[in-house]
Amino acid sequence: MTLPARAQEPGTTTTIHTEGAGAVRRTVLPGGLRVITESMPTVRSAAFGIWSGVGSRDEAVADAGASHYLEHVLFKGTRTRSALEISAALDAVGGDLNAFTAKEYTCYYARVLDSDLPLAVDVVSDMVAASVNRPEDVEAERGVILEEIHMRDDDPGDLIHDEFATALYGDTPLGRPILGTVESINALSRDRIHDYYREHYVPSNLVVSVAGNIDHEEVVGLVSRAFAEHLTGGAAPAAPRLNGAPVPVAPSTRVIDKDTEQAHIVLGGAGVSRTDDRRFALGVLNAALGGGMSSRLFQEVREKRGLAYSVYSYTAQYADSGVFGVYAGCQPGKVEEVLSICRDEVAKVAGDGGQGLTAEELERGKGQLRGAMVLGLEDTGSRMSRIGKSELVYESLLPVDEVLARIEAVTLEDVRAVAHEVLDSPQALTVIGPVGDRDFAA
Amino acid sequence: MTLPARAQEPGTTTTIHTEGAGAVRRTVLPGGLRVITESMPTVRSAAFGIWSGVGSRDEAVADAGASHYLEHVLFKGTRTRSALEISAALDAVGGDLNAFTAKEYTCYYARVLDSDLPLAVDVVSDMVAASVNRPEDVEAERGVILEEIHMRDDDPGDLIHDEFATALYGDTPLGRPILGTVESINALSRDRIHDYYREHYVPSNLVVSVAGNIDHEEVVGLVSRAFAEHLTGGAAPAAPRLNGAPVPVAPSTRVIDKDTEQAHIVLGGAGVSRTDDRRFALGVLNAALGGGMSSRLFQEVREKRGLAYSVYSYTAQYADSGVFGVYAGCQPGKVEEVLSICRDEVAKVAGDGGQGLTAEELERGKGQLRGAMVLGLEDTGSRMSRIGKSELVYESLLPVDEVLARIEAVTLEDVRAVAHEVLDSPQALTVIGPVGDRDFAA
Repeated sequence: MTLPARAQEPGTTTTIHTEGAGAVRRTVLPGGLRVITESMPTVRSAAFGIWSGVGSRDEAVADAGASHYLEHVLFKGTRTRSALEISAALDAVGGDLNAFTAKEYTCYYARVLDSDLPLAVDVVSDMVAASVNRPEDVEAERGVILEEIHMRDDDPGDLIHDEFATALYGDTPLGRPILGTVESINALSRDRIHDYYREHYVPSNLVVSVAGNIDHEEVVGLVSRAFAEHLTGGAAPAAPRLNGAPVPVAPSTRVIDKDTEQAHIVLGGAGVSRTDDRRFALGVLNAALGGGMSSRLFQEVREKRGLAYSVYSYTAQYADSGVFGVYAGCQPGKVEEVLSICRDEVAKVAGDGGQGLTAEELERGKGQLRGAMVLGLEDTGSRMSRIGKSELVYESLLPVDEVLARIEAVTLEDVRAVAHEVLDSPQALTVIGPVGDRDFAA
Repeated sequence: MTLPARAQEPGTTTTIHTEGAGAVRRTVLPGGLRVITESMPTVRSAAFGIWSGVGSRDEAVADAGASHYLEHVLFKGTRTRSALEISAALDAVGGDLNAFTAKEYTCYYARVLDSDLPLAVDVVSDMVAASVNRPEDVEAERGVILEEIHMRDDDPGDLIHDEFATALYGDTPLGRPILGTVESINALSRDRIHDYYREHYVPSNLVVSVAGNIDHEEVVGLVSRAFAEHLTGGAAPAAPRLNGAPVPVAPSTRVIDKDTEQAHIVLGGAGVSRTDDRRFALGVLNAALGGGMSSRLFQEVREKRGLAYSVYSYTAQYADSGVFGVYAGCQPGKVEEVLSICRDEVAKVAGDGGQGLTAEELERGKGQLRGAMVLGLEDTGSRMSRIGKSELVYESLLPVDEVLARIEAVTLEDVRAVAHEVLDSPQALTVIGPVGDRDFAA
């Protein structure tokens, strides 16, 4: 077990662990800003990210969409840089500059050649630490976000996931869309956005993570200078949202009649939280049920019957909750048939009545998780994400070898147990398509 | 200039060039199958691809969609493997197995840990070389492809690009969608698909490309064994489609009235071909006009006015033709305004009346292309694509350093010249949205 940041003295540095040729190190700056790096000496690039521990689940109803709106506004200018100066700086070196907002965090990142890291640190830190959130910029960005909402509405394969969250969690912070609604976006004022920024973008709620051909001490120096005027006001690093009781779910059925070519379906229920020991077994179950082309759902729905182009299962994890869901897109007239197959396949692996997985599926599922994990860690962006997100939302960073060992240790009985708990629980259902008011109850 | 495969004796190996720590090598097997590899000794993975020099532009009207249909069917089984055995083999090691069909080629690829390369070579080669295309599998896959077409139809931001190709090239091979149509897919028989396979998947029309922690001789051995029974029937390697005359365009306006939230717009015309020396200047122009957040279109449409979430320009290259286009998604009531801004920005950089780019934009555009190229070559998949596609469709592989030098050599005058040629030519326009029969002529 590695040392949690909360137990580390501000102003000190610790080596969390070494992996392969590189090492993961963390420095907590005075004021609580955490800087975590992973050196990858064989690459020539670096990925730099700043993570804020705020996301859509922190929003009151009246603030719905504020985290994401703010993420956009932070690109619009600082005390010393215009929006054009921000984007031109990274474009000029061919860097990727982007950001995303999730339910529990927001991340701003740049990927650049290693020699351009000082530039990336300077620009992205300035964006995050010294945003001015001018009223005219907040206003212009409101139109952009409304268009983003409309774009989501035009893509039913995207919209269905937001609708499903509402079907599972109801009108609660985890159930509401990250984008907010047209109404909430129109109602958010510049002052509210600016207050939200000052409240949540404090050093103790921020993590800087860097992976690539970098030197930890050099990165700490760059970050210290970039944040020099913004390091106060923070207390000790905030604890992850490990508040104990799981978030209650209230699964319902939402059928949205819409003039589309395909019907889009998501069926699912509560999964496991981010720190739940059962997550490795659920990962194996997910792989076998709908995680790849050899999975049961892909084989039954697509390979054998040609009913869908896209069919898969997935998991999502939050601090105190999680989701296990199945997606399929099919002809509107085939929804009942596809749903029936999905429910049958779920029943076959779930609980007391089911036969569970075969030994072969168990091994294949483990191999799939293992290979995907190792392959997924070859680029600097993935490594930066792993350490940054871990620092923000986990108690500690699990070394890759330990994750692999935990996957390897999963037994058929573990899978059977988690399948029963997750799949034999009440399920929410969302269907979007030209389906009128058809009843899709099991 | 490196040796074209057409000049290389079958049964021999050549080192095309060395780049950084690795080397690019090619062996032409007896029968004409080309095996090209790039070693990347610092990674632990390998990407393996098989490229076939056939795509949708090779299809007669009656065959529309056959290349892509066949790509799907090749996953369905070989003389010795079922569809499940194919997918399970790669899933078990956590590999990515996938394929895509373009207008001029089709690619099947797997990305795996380096130790799993022999497995990937064995399975993917078997899929491509020994497919049986069973009638019942062709039939099941027909439904999958029809769902893929419907999914595309449900996503107007995707559909618009297919519609734009038709607006630019008319009802010609380059103008028709890669997916085919519901009618053409319903009409394609198993025998036609099988004939198409036997006609186009011959050794001289295939290229194997591999990048990662690999040894060229070992790869050649693996591929030789995997293709042992399939190496005959080929002549000398096929030449790229360098047939001289550029493909004529017939730009038209297509307005598709559809009940969507956003209106989706593509405006554009003929660009330059894949081997055209002006492609580097056009790349710089594209970067400055709509290639990044600091580009003119992003600044004018999104940053200043908040009219769109997504706005960008892009280029596409074919053997004897190319496209330069501008995309935007906006409120249906704002199409005229957005189009007017886009046309103004195009006019400002184009031809005699325009002021062209500034020196700063030129340098920034070069930096953007340079950085994106170098950053884009850190993963094995990108490297595999670069060498495989080059081998298939270019006369020769340009070393990265030479590409960087060609970018660096672009002058303001080069950009001005290509801007005039590309942007002052007749433009096609496609609009999808609830726009009735409004007239969007300039």
